[in-house]
Amino acid sequence: MASPVSTKRARTSKDVPYHLIYWPGFPGRGEPIRLALEEAGAIYTDTAHAEGGVNEVLAHIKGEQPFADDAANPPVFAPPILKHGELTINQTPNILLYLGARLGLAPSSDSEEDPDGSYKVNELALTALDGLSNEVHDCHHPISVNLYYEDQKAESKKRAEDYVKTRLPKFLGYFERVLGSRASGEGPWLYGGQLTYADLVLFQCVDGLKFMFPKAIAKLQREEKYAKVLQEHYEAVKARPKIKAYLESDRRQKYSNGMYRYYEELDIEG
Amino acid sequence: MASPVSTKRARTSKDVPYHLIYWPGFPGRGEPIRLALEEAGAIYTDTAHAEGGVNEVLAHIKGEQPFADDAANPPVFAPPILKHGELTINQTPNILLYLGARLGLAPSSDSEEDPDGSYKVNELALTALDGLSNEVHDCHHPISVNLYYEDQKAESKKRAEDYVKTRLPKFLGYFERVLGSRASGEGPWLYGGQLTYADLVLFQCVDGLKFMFPKAIAKLQREEKYAKVLQEHYEAVKARPKIKAYLESDRRQKYSNGMYRYYEELDIEG
Repeated sequence: MASPVSTKRARTSKDVPYHLIYWPGFPGRGEPIRLALEEAGAIYTDTAHAEGGVNEVLAHIKGEQPFADDAANPPVFAPPILKHGELTINQTPNILLYLGARLGLAPSSDSEEDPDGSYKVNELALTALDGLSNEVHDCHHPISVNLYYEDQKAESKKRAEDYVKTRLPKFLGYFERVLGSRASGEGPWLYGGQLTYADLVLFQCVDGLKFMFPKAIAKLQREEKYAKVLQEHYEAVKARPKIKAYLESDRRQKYSNGMYRYYEELDIEG
Repeated sequence: MASPVSTKRARTSKDVPYHLIYWPGFPGRGEPIRLALEEAGAIYTDTAHAEGGVNEVLAHIKGEQPFADDAANPPVFAPPILKHGELTINQTPNILLYLGARLGLAPSSDSEEDPDGSYKVNELALTALDGLSNEVHDCHHPISVNLYYEDQKAESKKRAEDYVKTRLPKFLGYFERVLGSRASGEGPWLYGGQLTYADLVLFQCVDGLKFMFPKAIAKLQREEKYAKVLQEHYEAVKARPKIKAYLESDRRQKYSNGMYRYYEELDIEG
C-alpha cells in the first residue's frame, strides 16, 4: 500500500544513482566530478569501469538515437556527461555546479547569509579549470587536437616552457592569494571556511601538475613558494577520509594519455 | 516616512545598477555580458566608457586595496568583473549565469516545469565560449599570451588553418544540431523556445568569427552550410529591438586587438 504523499517525500525521477559518462583509461576531465561524488558519498556508476562503456560515450558524441530525439536535453558536445534521472548535461564546470547544489559542496542559493556563494565557488572552479587544466592540455597540443603530440613537439616545447615560466606562477599565485584572503575564512579551504567542489578541482589540478611537471613543482616546493596551494590545501584535501579511500581504490585511474601527461622534454624546472 | 515592510519589498543592496569592469577598446570577453544587460534593458555602468576606467580594471587584477581586504568576495583573476551591490564576481560564464537568473534570460530554478533548465543554458554558453571564442584567441596566440602575435606568426598560421578546417566545422555543426533538436523548441532559439543568454553568446561568437575569418564564413554561407547558426539564429538575435539599438549605438565598440582580430594571412577559406 502506498504511503500518503503528505508524510513521505514523493519518489521522483531524481531518486536514482548518478551516472558519469566519460572515457576510460585516465582521470581526465571526468576526475573533478568523481571527486565530488566520492567526497559526498554519492551512489554513482561510471562508464570508465563498465564493460563497453566507451560505446556509450561514442553514442552521445555522435548524437545517435535515442539521444538525438531527446525533447528535454540539448545534444551534448563532449564528455564528461552526467545523467541523473531524465536529466543529461555536460561540461565539467556545469556538472560540478549541479552536483555542488545537490551534494552540499557549495553554498545553497536558499541560504540567508550567503545566497550568492555558489557564484563565488563557480568562478574559482572555472579559473582553476582554465589555467591549471585546459592550458595544460595545450602544452602538449598547441597546434591541433587532431595531430599527435609527436607532430607538434617543437611547438609543445615552446608552449610548455612559457606555461611553466609565466602561466603556472600566475595561476598558483592567484590561488595563493585566494587562500590567504579574508573571504576564504577559517581553515585550509578556498571559500567560506568550508570545503567546496572548487577545493576538489584545485586539488586535482595540483595533483595532475605534479605528475606532468615534477621538476617545476619540486623546485617551487623547495623554495617554499605557493605553500598554501601546493602543500597545506593539497594535503588537506588528500586527507579527507572519503577522498583518501578513493585515491587508494582501483576506481582512481592512473595518469596516462589524458590531460596531464609526462613527457621528459617538457619537464623543465622553470 | 518609511512604508511598512510588509507591503513593500525591502530595499536591498541589490537595488543598484550593475557595474561591468572590463578593458576599453574592443568588445572582447565583456561583450556577451553587455548583450545580456542590453537585451534585458538593465541599468548598468561600464568601465570601457568611463574616464580612467582602465585603472579600475588594473586595481582589481593587482589585488589592490580595498579589494584585497574584501571579506565577502574572493579576489578575482581577470576581467570581465561584475559588481552588483556588495557582490563582486568574475568569469564570463559565471557572470552570465548570475545575470541569466536575475534578468529572465534563463529558466528559473523555481520553475515547476523546468527547474534544471539553467544547467542546459549554462552548458551551451560554456561550449560556445570554449570553441568559438577561447579557441579563436589561441589562433593568434598559440604559444604564449605574453608574446606579440608577430613573434608567433608561423605557429598562428598552422593553428588558424587547423581551426578553420577542423574545429570551426565541429562547433558550428554541434550548434546546428542543437538548433535542430527537439529540446530547442519552437522558433530560432537554442533552448526551450525562448531566447536565453546562450543565444546572445552564440550570436556574439558568430559575429566575431565573421570579422576574423570573413572568407571562411562567406564560403560556408555560399554553400548554405550551418544555415541555422550562421543565418537564421544570427539574424534573429540581431533583429531583437534592444540588441539592434545597442549594435547601432556608440556603446558597441569596434573589433580591434581583442579576442577576434583580422590578420590577412589567417583569413583562409578552409
